[in-house]
Amino acid sequence: MKCRKCAEKAIINMRQHKLALCKTHYPAWVVEQTERFIQKYRMFTHQDRVLVAVSGGKDSLSLWDILWQLGYSADGLYIGLGIDGGIDYSVESQRLAEAFAASRGLKLDVVSIPQEYGETIPAIAERTTRGRGKPCAVCGLSKRHVMNRVAYEGGYTVLVTGHNLDDEAATLFGNTMNWAGGFLLRQGPVLEAHHTGLVRKAKPLFRFYEREMAAYALVRGIDYIYEECPYAEGAKSIYYKELLNKLENDHPGAKLSFFLSFLQAKENGLFASNAGMQEVLTEDGVLLHTCPFCGQPTSAPGPCSFCRMVLVKDRG
Amino acid sequence: MKCRKCAEKAIINMRQHKLALCKTHYPAWVVEQTERFIQKYRMFTHQDRVLVAVSGGKDSLSLWDILWQLGYSADGLYIGLGIDGGIDYSVESQRLAEAFAASRGLKLDVVSIPQEYGETIPAIAERTTRGRGKPCAVCGLSKRHVMNRVAYEGGYTVLVTGHNLDDEAATLFGNTMNWAGGFLLRQGPVLEAHHTGLVRKAKPLFRFYEREMAAYALVRGIDYIYEECPYAEGAKSIYYKELLNKLENDHPGAKLSFFLSFLQAKENGLFASNAGMQEVLTEDGVLLHTCPFCGQPTSAPGPCSFCRMVLVKDRG
Repeated sequence: MKCRKCAEKAIINMRQHKLALCKTHYPAWVVEQTERFIQKYRMFTHQDRVLVAVSGGKDSLSLWDILWQLGYSADGLYIGLGIDGGIDYSVESQRLAEAFAASRGLKLDVVSIPQEYGETIPAIAERTTRGRGKPCAVCGLSKRHVMNRVAYEGGYTVLVTGHNLDDEAATLFGNTMNWAGGFLLRQGPVLEAHHTGLVRKAKPLFRFYEREMAAYALVRGIDYIYEECPYAEGAKSIYYKELLNKLENDHPGAKLSFFLSFLQAKENGLFASNAGMQEVLTEDGVLLHTCPFCGQPTSAPGPCSFCRMVLVKDRG
Repeated sequence: MKCRKCAEKAIINMRQHKLALCKTHYPAWVVEQTERFIQKYRMFTHQDRVLVAVSGGKDSLSLWDILWQLGYSADGLYIGLGIDGGIDYSVESQRLAEAFAASRGLKLDVVSIPQEYGETIPAIAERTTRGRGKPCAVCGLSKRHVMNRVAYEGGYTVLVTGHNLDDEAATLFGNTMNWAGGFLLRQGPVLEAHHTGLVRKAKPLFRFYEREMAAYALVRGIDYIYEECPYAEGAKSIYYKELLNKLENDHPGAKLSFFLSFLQAKENGLFASNAGMQEVLTEDGVLLHTCPFCGQPTSAPGPCSFCRMVLVKDRG
């Protein structure tokens, strides 16, 4: 198969776009498309100070690489989780994130959960009831907390993550399977900061398939951690991804149209404007409380979920 | 495996209910549950005159059998579609519907599309552009039209169909895959008559799995047409059913919880009250027009879709 733009051999064929591209035109196309999405969904501008949440995986490093090429002011944040899993997972992913930043002269902030809070993610998970034995819920909560804190304290105006279409479609699929109203309403390429203390979030890669991001990282020679997190095994999100891959395989473009038609329906007013938001916002759209420990907004009086988890060590 | 209610051998094990029942207690349980659903979802009462849309398949005949046992006033309507498909599909299904009615002394109204409108469903489908070569869209439109007409003219207060959970979950899944707002809002166990000329509709079997209805028909000795409609092959609904069966197999109860959580979310106000209804109702919830040919309500001025299809024979 030949590249649509030149006579070179194509390295990728995107069936849903009916587009095949070579090793030169493909990464250029990804960069252009990302810029188009950033503008189309009003994610941020060149005046913004962007913080990229970097895990050491293909998506977040590729995102940082793209923003760097596009000339955005984008620093990185790596959060050390203290996960080993027999493969030195956290050590290795930190090394790769640092090597990437060094190679491009980019600024990477590193926050270590074990150093800062005295415990690794798996240790916190073992101590608390959250997540029933799996550290994923604890990890998600911790990352959201630290990301927002660092972004807010650092004066960043937007926090970006490397979620790709497969991630977003699987999350949407899960939220649809049990019609989780609040999550359905909040899911999208941009999440506005509804309250002082929160930083707006954006997902510039949300329209790229996972395999497209893998191809991008490969052709750009980005050295990333290939292994999935050792705790991801058996996760529902992976199950949903496989299901959606079957759907995509039988109906090319199904994943993209599932997600884009969701965004369209939302824009057309399918959902009641305040459905499912009761637990987070008052009627005026204002968050209810401030955590006395970390100062971040929280939905209930007293310490936020994260502070309760890391501070109250005798908890179940 | 033993029956939960006696020592007999179970004929069915319903994993999602953790319930196994024998050949005596299973059909009794189905009948009781149906009565419970009829009441819970306020479908109809013993004062209603019920019209059952009967196809000759396991679901509609079982539904009629259940309503008959429960003592409801329920007549049947069989619609002849003129489908052969090398298996005498329509002839055979009509014979089975008539035999069922005769065996229980029930009244069955038969409307033949070819006799009444001069053409079989496949012939109409070949003549029109609706459905792009597949007669399913033409068939659905025709059945909805005839069912409503017969129910309205016959003074029935509710029209019931044998849709089971697999049908409803597959439809919901399809409507969710492309976030079809209007359809999402209208889907449910009961569809109220929004306008003079429309009869309310209900689906008393919507919480039973397809295999449960097959087991019910079998154990009750109901002779039904085993073949799928010859035109159903390759239908998206069948594809979605297979996908949901995989999900169900890996997570027993997934299909039921997908559908019930949808109904719950709707009741909790997830959807904007008039989202997607613009094309059917005015702001007062009143249908806009009346078809000058058949007198049924329709969304646009002039003849309704059905009348346009069967009356204007030179249509491409």
